[in-house]
Amino acid sequence: MFFRIASAIALMASVPAFAFQNDLISDGEAGTARQLMEMAAESDTGYEIVRSLTTEVGPRLGGSQQEARARDWAVQMFTELGFSNVRIESFEMPFWNRGPISAAIVAPFPQPMLASALGGSAATPQGGLNAEIVFFDSYTALRDFDGSLEGRIAFVNDRMIRAQTGAGYGPANDKRRYAWLEAEARGASGVMIRSVGTDSHRFPHTGMISTPRTDTVAGGAHSQIAVDYLEQEHPDFTERRVWSSIPAVALSAPDADQIERIHQSGETVRVSLSVVAGWRGNRQSGNVVAEIPGREQPEEIVLIGAHLDSWDEATGAVDDGAGVGIVTAAAHMIDRLPRAPRRTIRVVLFGAEEVGLLGAFAYARENAEEVGNIVMASESDFGAGRVWSLTSGTSEDGTQFLDQAQQIIAPLGIIRGSRASRGGGPDIIPLAAQDVPVFRLSQDGTDYFDLHHTPDDTFDKIDPEALAQNVAAWAAITWLIAETDVEFRTLPEDNE
Amino acid sequence: MFFRIASAIALMASVPAFAFQNDLISDGEAGTARQLMEMAAESDTGYEIVRSLTTEVGPRLGGSQQEARARDWAVQMFTELGFSNVRIESFEMPFWNRGPISAAIVAPFPQPMLASALGGSAATPQGGLNAEIVFFDSYTALRDFDGSLEGRIAFVNDRMIRAQTGAGYGPANDKRRYAWLEAEARGASGVMIRSVGTDSHRFPHTGMISTPRTDTVAGGAHSQIAVDYLEQEHPDFTERRVWSSIPAVALSAPDADQIERIHQSGETVRVSLSVVAGWRGNRQSGNVVAEIPGREQPEEIVLIGAHLDSWDEATGAVDDGAGVGIVTAAAHMIDRLPRAPRRTIRVVLFGAEEVGLLGAFAYARENAEEVGNIVMASESDFGAGRVWSLTSGTSEDGTQFLDQAQQIIAPLGIIRGSRASRGGGPDIIPLAAQDVPVFRLSQDGTDYFDLHHTPDDTFDKIDPEALAQNVAAWAAITWLIAETDVEFRTLPEDNE
Repeated sequence: MFFRIASAIALMASVPAFAFQNDLISDGEAGTARQLMEMAAESDTGYEIVRSLTTEVGPRLGGSQQEARARDWAVQMFTELGFSNVRIESFEMPFWNRGPISAAIVAPFPQPMLASALGGSAATPQGGLNAEIVFFDSYTALRDFDGSLEGRIAFVNDRMIRAQTGAGYGPANDKRRYAWLEAEARGASGVMIRSVGTDSHRFPHTGMISTPRTDTVAGGAHSQIAVDYLEQEHPDFTERRVWSSIPAVALSAPDADQIERIHQSGETVRVSLSVVAGWRGNRQSGNVVAEIPGREQPEEIVLIGAHLDSWDEATGAVDDGAGVGIVTAAAHMIDRLPRAPRRTIRVVLFGAEEVGLLGAFAYARENAEEVGNIVMASESDFGAGRVWSLTSGTSEDGTQFLDQAQQIIAPLGIIRGSRASRGGGPDIIPLAAQDVPVFRLSQDGTDYFDLHHTPDDTFDKIDPEALAQNVAAWAAITWLIAETDVEFRTLPEDNE
Repeated sequence: MFFRIASAIALMASVPAFAFQNDLISDGEAGTARQLMEMAAESDTGYEIVRSLTTEVGPRLGGSQQEARARDWAVQMFTELGFSNVRIESFEMPFWNRGPISAAIVAPFPQPMLASALGGSAATPQGGLNAEIVFFDSYTALRDFDGSLEGRIAFVNDRMIRAQTGAGYGPANDKRRYAWLEAEARGASGVMIRSVGTDSHRFPHTGMISTPRTDTVAGGAHSQIAVDYLEQEHPDFTERRVWSSIPAVALSAPDADQIERIHQSGETVRVSLSVVAGWRGNRQSGNVVAEIPGREQPEEIVLIGAHLDSWDEATGAVDDGAGVGIVTAAAHMIDRLPRAPRRTIRVVLFGAEEVGLLGAFAYARENAEEVGNIVMASESDFGAGRVWSLTSGTSEDGTQFLDQAQQIIAPLGIIRGSRASRGGGPDIIPLAAQDVPVFRLSQDGTDYFDLHHTPDDTFDKIDPEALAQNVAAWAAITWLIAETDVEFRTLPEDNE
């Protein structure tokens, strides 16, 4: 590990600040927050953390040996940076991994394709598949299809919409999550999807398949055919995960275009597919935790996180090396202040996020008694684009506090977003479900899904200035929340 | 094949033209050239040809079965479009192909890398290689290295400069062509290069290795160690091709960055490499030829070409599907005029360009008696970017003629470039060497080397408007050259 930590910055005695219309944040507190922002802007600590993780560990699939190396790396990093209470909180998890894949159009125009098995995919039978595809314009068209897919492969072609907020991801992702089920329920031999992504490069985007959520299974997200199939084949599906029995793969956008063009010409497309992938029993994963103990209320915890694991086909720079760098560097900025904040800051690097938020659920389960002490929680897991909005879901006092805190980070180009958001990031979901207040520093994700879950998610894609802007915002907001005695927990009654 | 040929455009009786200061091109001729430009701007024939070739044939490596399919496709296309004298001119060629490859860093930080065997590469020994790399900043550093590389792998890290003209390609390409020789001469087990390309995506760029040219072997392009090695191991190298005995591979830019970062940290990098690749005996390839016979001097030939083959890892849209579309559509525009031009227009789609200009040399050899009848020759082989310059190397009369012709295509944004260029495109090299006059419609290649020789060279990368601009320029210039009786052949005495 080779952190080039910037030489300690002499803290200015007091930063001149304009008069601040503010009753919840003092001028002194605002001044310290601004100091942190200045320190962050001059520091490359966050960038160096991403460099180190992506270079010295590389890909780190949840449950893999590489993810174990990432935990060791994280313990060493936190220790070198001077954090307290550095520890690994281990948990057990089902392990899926992939082997080689090959996919090709065999008729009418033979040519290879670039594909990636979706996480949770089954392998193809010995010798692979050779089957006609049935073309569906969208997941909805597949869901509404009332014919048989026996002996054929379903191809689902939804395109994802590019948006700063990543708003196109959810809708486009239905096909990744559930197309396997709709296809399998109709007897298909396999399922292929156009990658969930916004690029037009020859990279497939991987990602997990899912089991239907019990709260949506009857709500139109799935066909009656799929619901009946689940109830017949997996009567206990509401209680445990169900995995596909058929191979489920994503094609790169240009390969999906190719199938689309041939289909549109009126030809039937026949493909071959060989997938080596599957579940390999249970493995160890873990969350890596480090703290800055609070000077007055150490039992009150401001939890900031990112996930340590990545998909296996890239070094996970934007997903989520960037988040690791951002929250760690932000906490490190705070740790270099002359005194600790009133509350404890806890950095959690979650394991096995990509493969089903397994670290997040393990964390909430194993730390259940302490969840009530978490003042606020947030995760950075949306790449390295600049922060443009502060959203939150807290008490009314907390909302007012964050209104005022936003004024401090406004010079970074950050507006105040929703005051009634339950979104704190993927790994915060289990905590938010237990009423832990959340905030989020929303990033510009316009380009995020060009790289997301592809082999192309590598360190060269990180803009160091945008990363430093993130660190500045995180340092200021995290410190302000840790320093104040405002109670965030009572949820607002004026939810929008 | 599904060309959607635009309905025949009724030719306007005469296009009103401003008075033209011009003694070599008549107002009527200029008017027809402008008509062709207008027809091209309204036509999607070129774009449809690229779509058809890249979709219905796909990748088409020189000497492969897929390249044979491409020839059948081309014959059918030319025939459907109404060309005359459509034929395949076959030739035999040595066939190289690749199988699977795997490359990884094994120490100090184990992780997979994305690599591609260079054309002409040998395979690794049974069981693959596991060796330390010796890091060279540049090909020059390798060439000047006077130590042994016994049992190690040379890594060569030159970066390519981005330029509209593609001027960075030649210098960066020395390492692709010749690093194998410098490495092998020093006892290396293999050679890895940073891909020759301008992108930072996770795509390796393939391309051929070369045998030193006899005219540069003593001129400093190669070390004395390499020259001695060649003379000792391959005393006949000046007369025949020599191929590497060691594996030679390109890494994607992000993977090369990874090696560079680890090297710069002071660590020694150990890699594993498994390459299945090699020469597979002789195969058939061929050039596909089609004509518009001249109405007055059919024996005089204006030769416009592109290459039909592509690398095997993509569908070859910019390299060189675009060229196939451009020159074919341009000739087709001309063929739709009420009468043929005075001279014959011959479209040649060369085979096996990527693997050593084999079609070009076969063409010049097999048509040796006719080379003297080629009035002018040019190839489109630089992607689908807009044409910005007309260069040429002809008689003085020809230069003046093209000065005036450039004024006609100037509204397309095309300036007059060099009047003393021998460059007509890669497949024109053997003809230019026999003093065939050349012109070139130089394209904007700023982004060309982002895609060049990668799996990402697919149809979605083609801008139909830029392609149509190319067709317009080619139609106008080709027709003007075919219609005039200007003699281009006498080379200018005022060569710059």
